[in-house]
Amino acid sequence: MNGVHPMWLRPGPIPGLAGGDALIEGDDPLLDTVRAEARAAGMHVAEAAASDGALAPQVRISIDRAGTPAGFAVTGDGERTVVVAGGASGALYGWFELVRRAATGRLHEPGTTRHEPTQAVRILDHWDNVDVHPVMGQVERGYAGGSIFFDAGRVRDDLSRVHEYGRLLASIGIDRVAINNVNVHAREARLLTDDLADVARIAAELRPWGIRLHLSVSFASPIVLGGLETSDPLDARVRAWWRETADRVWAAIPDFGGFVVKADSEGQPGPFAYGRDHADGANLLAEAVALHGGLVHWRAFVYNHAQDWRDRTTDRARAAFDHFTPLDGRFADQVIVQVKHGPMDFQVREPVSPVLAAMPRTRVALELQVTQEYTGQQRHAVYLAPMWREVLDFAPFGAGSPPVADLTATGGGIAAVSNVGDDAFWTGHPLAQANLYAFGRLAWDATLDPAAILDEWIALTFWSGASLDREVAAVVHELLDASWQTYESYTAPLGVGFMVTPGTHYGPSVDGYEYSPWGTYHFADRDGIGVDRTVATGTGYAGQYPPPWRETYESLDTVPDELLLFFHHVPYTHRLHSGSTVIQHIYDTHFAGADAVDAMVAAWASLEGRVDDAVFARVRDRLAEQQRSAREWRDQVNTYFLRKSGIPDGRGRAIFA
Amino acid sequence: MNGVHPMWLRPGPIPGLAGGDALIEGDDPLLDTVRAEARAAGMHVAEAAASDGALAPQVRISIDRAGTPAGFAVTGDGERTVVVAGGASGALYGWFELVRRAATGRLHEPGTTRHEPTQAVRILDHWDNVDVHPVMGQVERGYAGGSIFFDAGRVRDDLSRVHEYGRLLASIGIDRVAINNVNVHAREARLLTDDLADVARIAAELRPWGIRLHLSVSFASPIVLGGLETSDPLDARVRAWWRETADRVWAAIPDFGGFVVKADSEGQPGPFAYGRDHADGANLLAEAVALHGGLVHWRAFVYNHAQDWRDRTTDRARAAFDHFTPLDGRFADQVIVQVKHGPMDFQVREPVSPVLAAMPRTRVALELQVTQEYTGQQRHAVYLAPMWREVLDFAPFGAGSPPVADLTATGGGIAAVSNVGDDAFWTGHPLAQANLYAFGRLAWDATLDPAAILDEWIALTFWSGASLDREVAAVVHELLDASWQTYESYTAPLGVGFMVTPGTHYGPSVDGYEYSPWGTYHFADRDGIGVDRTVATGTGYAGQYPPPWRETYESLDTVPDELLLFFHHVPYTHRLHSGSTVIQHIYDTHFAGADAVDAMVAAWASLEGRVDDAVFARVRDRLAEQQRSAREWRDQVNTYFLRKSGIPDGRGRAIFA
Repeated sequence: MNGVHPMWLRPGPIPGLAGGDALIEGDDPLLDTVRAEARAAGMHVAEAAASDGALAPQVRISIDRAGTPAGFAVTGDGERTVVVAGGASGALYGWFELVRRAATGRLHEPGTTRHEPTQAVRILDHWDNVDVHPVMGQVERGYAGGSIFFDAGRVRDDLSRVHEYGRLLASIGIDRVAINNVNVHAREARLLTDDLADVARIAAELRPWGIRLHLSVSFASPIVLGGLETSDPLDARVRAWWRETADRVWAAIPDFGGFVVKADSEGQPGPFAYGRDHADGANLLAEAVALHGGLVHWRAFVYNHAQDWRDRTTDRARAAFDHFTPLDGRFADQVIVQVKHGPMDFQVREPVSPVLAAMPRTRVALELQVTQEYTGQQRHAVYLAPMWREVLDFAPFGAGSPPVADLTATGGGIAAVSNVGDDAFWTGHPLAQANLYAFGRLAWDATLDPAAILDEWIALTFWSGASLDREVAAVVHELLDASWQTYESYTAPLGVGFMVTPGTHYGPSVDGYEYSPWGTYHFADRDGIGVDRTVATGTGYAGQYPPPWRETYESLDTVPDELLLFFHHVPYTHRLHSGSTVIQHIYDTHFAGADAVDAMVAAWASLEGRVDDAVFARVRDRLAEQQRSAREWRDQVNTYFLRKSGIPDGRGRAIFA
Repeated sequence: MNGVHPMWLRPGPIPGLAGGDALIEGDDPLLDTVRAEARAAGMHVAEAAASDGALAPQVRISIDRAGTPAGFAVTGDGERTVVVAGGASGALYGWFELVRRAATGRLHEPGTTRHEPTQAVRILDHWDNVDVHPVMGQVERGYAGGSIFFDAGRVRDDLSRVHEYGRLLASIGIDRVAINNVNVHAREARLLTDDLADVARIAAELRPWGIRLHLSVSFASPIVLGGLETSDPLDARVRAWWRETADRVWAAIPDFGGFVVKADSEGQPGPFAYGRDHADGANLLAEAVALHGGLVHWRAFVYNHAQDWRDRTTDRARAAFDHFTPLDGRFADQVIVQVKHGPMDFQVREPVSPVLAAMPRTRVALELQVTQEYTGQQRHAVYLAPMWREVLDFAPFGAGSPPVADLTATGGGIAAVSNVGDDAFWTGHPLAQANLYAFGRLAWDATLDPAAILDEWIALTFWSGASLDREVAAVVHELLDASWQTYESYTAPLGVGFMVTPGTHYGPSVDGYEYSPWGTYHFADRDGIGVDRTVATGTGYAGQYPPPWRETYESLDTVPDELLLFFHHVPYTHRLHSGSTVIQHIYDTHFAGADAVDAMVAAWASLEGRVDDAVFARVRDRLAEQQRSAREWRDQVNTYFLRKSGIPDGRGRAIFA
């Protein structure tokens, strides 16, 4: 590898496509993009059918204006393939489907498949700062270097990485990108006004890939930028300021996507200061974007971050539901309420947020986190698609009812925090590219199998000459397939969450958040552990779910083992459905998890010389850190609970007392 | 109060002195300083005795070149006072003794008292950075704003605060100041070379007060600044570089004091990299400063800061002794080995370091910390003189043998980390001025009573017009007198130490350092707590003391309660000499400590309108934070141990489970 890693889009001619003829019909900038891609793949490209009776081209792409613009059908006959798209974006997505088929040996597979995006809105959020933040760095919770958009306090002059990023995102069906951190600091607020010309340059790099640019904005913008003394959403001057500001944004960027807002959350300003609620706040912005076809992503991540740990009645898990569900029906059409997948904060294991099913008259988006804030920070290899698929499949009203993916599909769609930076591998850990890839694929089709997505990504990424090294593919698959469960097994047990180092969120600190103001507690004492969130004796959080889940979670007889400590406080000797006790489960999983990382290290070592040297070395180094860290997790957690419970390991393994 | 607080030197005429005649005889820049001070105090100053038979002046100061230059005798007859000093510095110190006597109503007290500094070297160390460090700020472990020496990456243009600081230090007998952080970063290293002209400007501000300037230097200076590829202390080029560098320093600053070095400690470079030991390293610098009469303060704070918490055989408390005592006799005359008062790191309670008594053939300095890193960071009112006096009084070889103060007196003297910054009150918390004052007074005379020093400081500081408000004085005395014990009572119990938030070292985190690499553990489990440092079953640290202390600390029968958990791991039900159990002691002291802070808050509130408004407000605000923090300490510590031990409070008070 020289320079920047190509991720899953191999440079140069693509085996199977190169040398063939492509007919790409129609007149649209996105079709020009497709033609350029086909030429770069080594194809001979024509824009109109030949009239001389020559053979049909190997690939034909056209538009029939049927179906959604992003959808397409692929028909192969074993030797040729035809893509018929609903619009130009569908043609672009159809082309990248051919690239996938070529990489996996299915290019001209006979038969017809139809492809429509499950989620109507598919957005990646960047938590990038323009200035380097003294604590959070340039990219908040970023583990892949600096921002690809900003450097040295301004938009980069050279945006070639952004162009390449747009191409990668288009290839997995992402159609929107919010370029700046939801915590909008003073410098970043000005992107909305002073920096519009520079923001327009970013938008211009994304446009050829069918991607619309969004901005995170401060709710206090009318004060900070507009010189008003208020940002009260019901104030006429505030409303006028937002309308005029939006007009200027769309004048500069005609396909601008909209605004992302974190309001009244973790210190960000919001409508509460004026006695208004989140519907008032969101609708203020909706009014400003409505005429332009824009969206307002309004985050539901609102809770009391100055909680008293002594107060056992307040439960952070309840907060989003308590704040937002009373407002159902009051949000304007342009507003998307963006809900984190779990009620806490991107832990390795949480129940699915009950808010997703509780606002039928609101456009609700599911928010995932591709950047691995709580899942190893791209120093640990953790393939997250299996977790996301569980979320997308969760049926809030019980078996047979619509899953989460269907609830968000035509409304708010799906959003995720990007894991990309200016790192040579884009994602710090080369294997973390799989998470970005899988997010796009699941946002497009929530029914895809995570293991199949993984194989697809491997085939696109670990090519060697004209073909895939099947042994490499098998090792990478094995390494990543169960890596989420492995990470879970050596970190916080049974859904209890956190136990990470405060601030950085990396590495173990079992009591690190136990006496904090963040609402993140496990309540371990010498007898037991867990948070009682039942209706009967606890915080009542379980009651936020519709049946059957409220009953499932309420009862020790039915709560799933993996969420036991999220919903219940139990003795260490409580017996899981698995047959193990809680304490023995903790010991067993932590020993097994660290052992599994040893196996990952050994597996990767076997690939030396068979994968790109730079990729090999970076992954090897990250795995060494994961091994060290996993052992630290194992020992700290096991020691903590041995000291507290006094119960020795039933298998007699050494635990440092 | 307008502008900068005057600390204990009231501005303008001094009641008792003002209006009187002063005869100050002799020719010396320091005597010019004394004359200027006397004039500023409102006296009529003459340089030679009147020949006209006029009445003798109220104050006469002269030099007889007997005794040490810093010493002096004061003789009063009820109406007049004569100071006879050994040298010009003694005259200066004698003048400030008169200021103290004036403030405490003893100006012309009949009789003669002799004054000689106990400690031959009395130095304040500043941990000031030139650049603002991204983590540590401008002053490492500083809680009083920025540096008085540096601003915006360079030596300040306006050094008037430094001049005033020199005056304050002279008034308490300090004669040396090291101006920069012992962790010498890249920018700060250059003070030694590129910045000499600016450093000389600082020295010029201190010189009128008899204070010599020292610099902290990097052991890697020959590489970093000299362009050599080594800093091996036995390398001839390295030795030459240091000699030439020292020559240049003294050429620029003829009364330069010497170098302070933190080597092979917490990441700082040192001689270990070359297979050399600390004697080799220190003697390298000694050779460079010898001809100039300079000193090398070489810190003994050397330990493994990357310890594995699983390793129960390594004991950080042992480290300084193990590293340094084998080198006794090998250090050059110019070297002072600077030893922290306890074996760990400025905790609220530690045993006295055994190193202080274990190097009879070495100049050993005692290092104290005026800045309240682990004792409330100048947000808590904690008067530290009682703790320091305990250290100074400790007799390592048992009752009747020389105390620590005598062991350091004529050798290395005493050093302390300053608590001063560019804050309007100099020390953040106005009451923390008492610690700086008391440090100087104890360095001068280790037999002074901390309560008497406190009263002296109060009399100098809380004047109102011509006299002291005795009610104010009583309240301030009451508030501070037992404040160290109060702080101890609500923080880490029975000498176990730490339990602070990692990194900041402020506020409770009982397990915060428990699984860290810093060698700072309490080993609490469900049955008991403490570190076994006995010879019989523990790390053997107790054996580093000579008799009788090794036996005293070794045995549960004789170990003092307040150090129990430093030396022993005991069950929560272990009974203290006080009659209480360990667990009940924890509960009782933590409730009592928080209650005592409530009383401090109430006491201070009673002074509203009787002390300067700005002082009142600042102290009130700090006490409010101390109250909040003390309650947090109380609740976190009590909850932690209730959860772990399962033993309820014997008095039935509410503990959050």
